[in-house]
Amino acid sequence: MLGRTYKLTLSYDGGAYAGWQRQANAVAVQQIVEEALGDLLGHPVSVRGASRTDAGVHARGQVAQLTVERDFPASGLVHGGNHRLPADVRVLAAQAVAPGFDARYSALGKEYRYRLIRAAVLSPLDAPYALRFTGELDRQALGEATTSLVGAHDFTAFALAGGGHRQPVRTIAQAEWLEDGDELVFRVVGDGFLRGMVRGLVGTLLEVGEGKRSPAKFTGLLCGRPRGEAGPTAPAHGLCLWRVLYPAAGGAERLC
Amino acid sequence: MLGRTYKLTLSYDGGAYAGWQRQANAVAVQQIVEEALGDLLGHPVSVRGASRTDAGVHARGQVAQLTVERDFPASGLVHGGNHRLPADVRVLAAQAVAPGFDARYSALGKEYRYRLIRAAVLSPLDAPYALRFTGELDRQALGEATTSLVGAHDFTAFALAGGGHRQPVRTIAQAEWLEDGDELVFRVVGDGFLRGMVRGLVGTLLEVGEGKRSPAKFTGLLCGRPRGEAGPTAPAHGLCLWRVLYPAAGGAERLC
Repeated sequence: MLGRTYKLTLSYDGGAYAGWQRQANAVAVQQIVEEALGDLLGHPVSVRGASRTDAGVHARGQVAQLTVERDFPASGLVHGGNHRLPADVRVLAAQAVAPGFDARYSALGKEYRYRLIRAAVLSPLDAPYALRFTGELDRQALGEATTSLVGAHDFTAFALAGGGHRQPVRTIAQAEWLEDGDELVFRVVGDGFLRGMVRGLVGTLLEVGEGKRSPAKFTGLLCGRPRGEAGPTAPAHGLCLWRVLYPAAGGAERLC
Repeated sequence: MLGRTYKLTLSYDGGAYAGWQRQANAVAVQQIVEEALGDLLGHPVSVRGASRTDAGVHARGQVAQLTVERDFPASGLVHGGNHRLPADVRVLAAQAVAPGFDARYSALGKEYRYRLIRAAVLSPLDAPYALRFTGELDRQALGEATTSLVGAHDFTAFALAGGGHRQPVRTIAQAEWLEDGDELVFRVVGDGFLRGMVRGLVGTLLEVGEGKRSPAKFTGLLCGRPRGEAGPTAPAHGLCLWRVLYPAAGGAERLC
């Protein structure tokens, strides 16, 4: 297709949406963005996101590519798009990129964060964005299992059906728990994630922290065990797509 | 009045409310809490808050006292209250206290925080809770003016009308800006605050940071100058009542 390609950085509160990907019977973020930008540009557009975030998952740094029929000022995509978008979806930035740019396949990796708060009752300022967790946590065991994630593993045990993944081996570059007062945040950076994988990891890691599963048993799951052997999928609202990583300009791949 | 007194710790998203204090023609948080607890207890109740937060101001640690006709388990006030409250208002904790306890007059002081984010567009996850601010900031001048707040001063220059304050001299124990990435948070602890005072301080401090007003001119306002001489009142949604401070059990005043 002729035209100009843009890289859009998007943030959304996923609470009201059936996830990123356009669906037949529910409102998805992709549809909302396509409608707003189509209205702005005066022709139908499709945007392709780097991550198919699930229903209820939030994003601070989703990336999508957009191809338009003619040049359009990048700042106009930000302001004109936000003028037409509902308040729970924002275009944070727009940048013209080389035609080969693909939000998904050009990405080096992604960072997700999952928030836990250890309190009897959550503040309404946190409740839509964090899981309340009051169980005892063996931090030594939790840390041991978390560290074992780094490297290339077969994550089949943590994937939900329906992701359409042919390649279950993914490489995790960083995995850690950040602590700030009564808040614990699971931060994970990897080259790719299967559907539901971060939430499956969190649900299973919490079982390790609670002593229901040993770090060694957790590590044993990382070689393609079936989904049923891992723990539960943690609720969607605690998860946030933090950022998508691309090669820096001047690196192996140039993004203009 | 006979009965039992409880100290309630409350948190709310102030976005939908006309402030803490009950009003004739708008929905206030106090009314919402009184209705929920009255329904729980089976008799009309009144709650008295430590701070009369303005319309749109949030709270993570508002404190209110409640007197009930007969003993009621404190945990029942938390769970039964939250069952009846809308999701944007929560009882975080309840504790039986000595009859003399008064949420406002027993308080030693309060902490407020005001969030600024320095970004072209705010994430929907932050926009309801922080002010977007992209001006240049002279951190040296801002720090100098902020430090001058500590101590006892006449804050008339920063007070909105209608607070009903007879005593404009308040003592600030701590005032600082906390920085975290693109976020700047004004944190202030004092024995009391006039109506609109924190927002007036923020609006005026930002003028100092932008070079529109010198730190010396700012300090000159702290001796009872008229409201018109200070800067604008910063928007309500960036402000949060962080906590209310009371004497520790075993201190000069016992709270049971």
